[in-house]
Amino acid sequence: MARVAKANAVVGQSGGPTGVINASLVGVIEEAKKHPEIANLYGAIHAVTGIVKDQFINLKKIPAKTLNLVAASSSSALGSSRDKPDEEYCAKILDIFKKRNVRYFFYIGGNDSANTCFIINNMAQKAGYELCAWHIPKTIDNDLLVTDHCPGFGTAAKFVACALMGDDLDNRALPGIKIDVIMGRNAGFLTAAAALAKNKEDAGPHLIYLPERPISMDKFLADVTAVYTKYNRCVIAASEGICDTDGIIWTKKIADTGEKDAHGNIQLSGTGALADFLADQIRAALKIKRVRADTFGYLQRSFAGLQSPVDFKEARLCGRQAVKYAIKPIRQAQGGQSGSVAIKRLKSAKYAVELFSTELSSVAEKTKRLPDEFINPEGNGVTNAFVKYAMPLTGGLPKTEYLGDYPRV
Amino acid sequence: MARVAKANAVVGQSGGPTGVINASLVGVIEEAKKHPEIANLYGAIHAVTGIVKDQFINLKKIPAKTLNLVAASSSSALGSSRDKPDEEYCAKILDIFKKRNVRYFFYIGGNDSANTCFIINNMAQKAGYELCAWHIPKTIDNDLLVTDHCPGFGTAAKFVACALMGDDLDNRALPGIKIDVIMGRNAGFLTAAAALAKNKEDAGPHLIYLPERPISMDKFLADVTAVYTKYNRCVIAASEGICDTDGIIWTKKIADTGEKDAHGNIQLSGTGALADFLADQIRAALKIKRVRADTFGYLQRSFAGLQSPVDFKEARLCGRQAVKYAIKPIRQAQGGQSGSVAIKRLKSAKYAVELFSTELSSVAEKTKRLPDEFINPEGNGVTNAFVKYAMPLTGGLPKTEYLGDYPRV
Repeated sequence: MARVAKANAVVGQSGGPTGVINASLVGVIEEAKKHPEIANLYGAIHAVTGIVKDQFINLKKIPAKTLNLVAASSSSALGSSRDKPDEEYCAKILDIFKKRNVRYFFYIGGNDSANTCFIINNMAQKAGYELCAWHIPKTIDNDLLVTDHCPGFGTAAKFVACALMGDDLDNRALPGIKIDVIMGRNAGFLTAAAALAKNKEDAGPHLIYLPERPISMDKFLADVTAVYTKYNRCVIAASEGICDTDGIIWTKKIADTGEKDAHGNIQLSGTGALADFLADQIRAALKIKRVRADTFGYLQRSFAGLQSPVDFKEARLCGRQAVKYAIKPIRQAQGGQSGSVAIKRLKSAKYAVELFSTELSSVAEKTKRLPDEFINPEGNGVTNAFVKYAMPLTGGLPKTEYLGDYPRV
Repeated sequence: MARVAKANAVVGQSGGPTGVINASLVGVIEEAKKHPEIANLYGAIHAVTGIVKDQFINLKKIPAKTLNLVAASSSSALGSSRDKPDEEYCAKILDIFKKRNVRYFFYIGGNDSANTCFIINNMAQKAGYELCAWHIPKTIDNDLLVTDHCPGFGTAAKFVACALMGDDLDNRALPGIKIDVIMGRNAGFLTAAAALAKNKEDAGPHLIYLPERPISMDKFLADVTAVYTKYNRCVIAASEGICDTDGIIWTKKIADTGEKDAHGNIQLSGTGALADFLADQIRAALKIKRVRADTFGYLQRSFAGLQSPVDFKEARLCGRQAVKYAIKPIRQAQGGQSGSVAIKRLKSAKYAVELFSTELSSVAEKTKRLPDEFINPEGNGVTNAFVKYAMPLTGGLPKTEYLGDYPRV
């Protein structure tokens, strides 16, 4: 297909915000500024919702100083959307693209966003409309295929690890049972990141429950009893998506309302029900008085000023790389003129990555779950392989010290 | 009373941990190392609980490198206790002190801890036992009398402000109603700190509810409706201790269990009940679909690696100063040989403080509430005077930028 000499570009941010999705946006803007092939770079306000309403801002005009502030800000600076476009919706998007001579589309999001790119790209091809559609990965859930990991995960993992690290120290100071419920509907990566806080043999989290491993209430209570007997305290990390041995997620079992989002998912975040339920079960069955439960909620993805420097850098690079791929299309087997940016971890002593491209269809609508080698045999914790995988993504964690077990005098 | 030439000292950490209570502990240790009058500095394991069980560690032997790690760690490195000693309990403490020739007692905690110092000091005086008992202030609630503010508050305020700042950006990206429930049973200082996140006219939190101002459900829903009508979104910060106009706290009204702590307080933290209740009320009455609620819980006091540098410095100084006061007792009117360390804010252009001492009785068991001049007339927000008071204590907050309201092209 012939290349259009000079045309416009659109960038949007979709789905749940993260701590570094704005770094990817700024990466796109910075790189686009270098390329005269991109006349205007339009920022879509509230993602696809803004595109079909023809609501854009001019991103090339924003000064570097402001861009640095944007990159450092959590959440999605352009606004986001939970819309999941079908063919009809995408036809409207394509109409707007044609009207504005948009030939480059950069969409930062998860597997649903990759699918939006995939549908629009196919429609454009059928219509003979020259379009480069690039998906830029983003998700705190870390559940995209092909890529080693996803921008957004490292920062959320850092938040979860710092929270558990503090929680474990708190639980040493005032012993009891502490339950923390962590985001991740289908994939246990973020809950598993709680393990990064475990800096001593006896440190919490002592138990980790993942959506990948069904857990019965009896087994859960037996696990808690065993830890409590050993340490006189117990810190538990549980995914919001944990399910019973019959495969039904616990939140569904205890929910009295069934609010679902536009993608047909049950709303699990933004309620303390699961945490309180687990605490009540422990109180009732084990007669332990001091049982506390927290649900980390939206802080995991939105907390200000706590970016992982590694995650930040990679998110920005992914944004830049998408523009490079679009300007100079690569071989069809690697995505052709449209695709998804992915991260490859190099086999080096020191953590290092390189970026590559993959076809949109390899990422769209697919979900990666926590691999078996990252989960312990009992299904209530993670392996050292997971810690080795996830720790570099946080950019390092604080060091702590507790004196309570020093020798008595 | 004659001074004992050389004697031992005990230091303990009581009540709910904070992000900088270990900085105060390290301040005590550092200063004690300088004074040969203090032969051994014993760390009481789990505060008064450890004292009566004669469980101590030797703190003078801990190397400076370890102390720096301790100072940087959240929570109470010696362990804490929720015991509230009465005369009988304090008599046991005094017996241990006599047995170990302890003539200096440093106790880091809130108004209950000041009271423990007060009781023990009185008992020692009656018994003619030379003892210097110094209370070192600590509380995320910031509810101690006399002192301008309390070590621990600035760090917790920073956490709350960063959380709300991110939450507001998240709520701009995906608009709806967001409720955040914040610690502070009787005093609204920490909930008020949510206002520090408000860096733009339209930024959240849009509504702040404090324990100092009763709020009816009708008024609450009317407030939310007004904000939602204006901005199409609303971020709410509510104290765990808010009460209805009949004076009964809402958590009590909705609690099905009545677990109380050793001080007779109802357990408000570690449950998502209030947040979920408020969210349900809004959903039911206002028919708004996207309503989310988070309870910040223990993260507010324990999150690792997020100390306010100002708070950290002051906490350490308070620890050092307590030892200085004990070694060289000051005038009786300022506390005599026992007392509580307090912070005075200087009337200077740039934020600065100096420490002074106050009598134990002026702090013991007393609670400061958020002053009227810090609360807005409607009782649903704070004043600029509060922001001016609290902002310096955080040591500064991240800067953020949102692009969604930039001019359309």
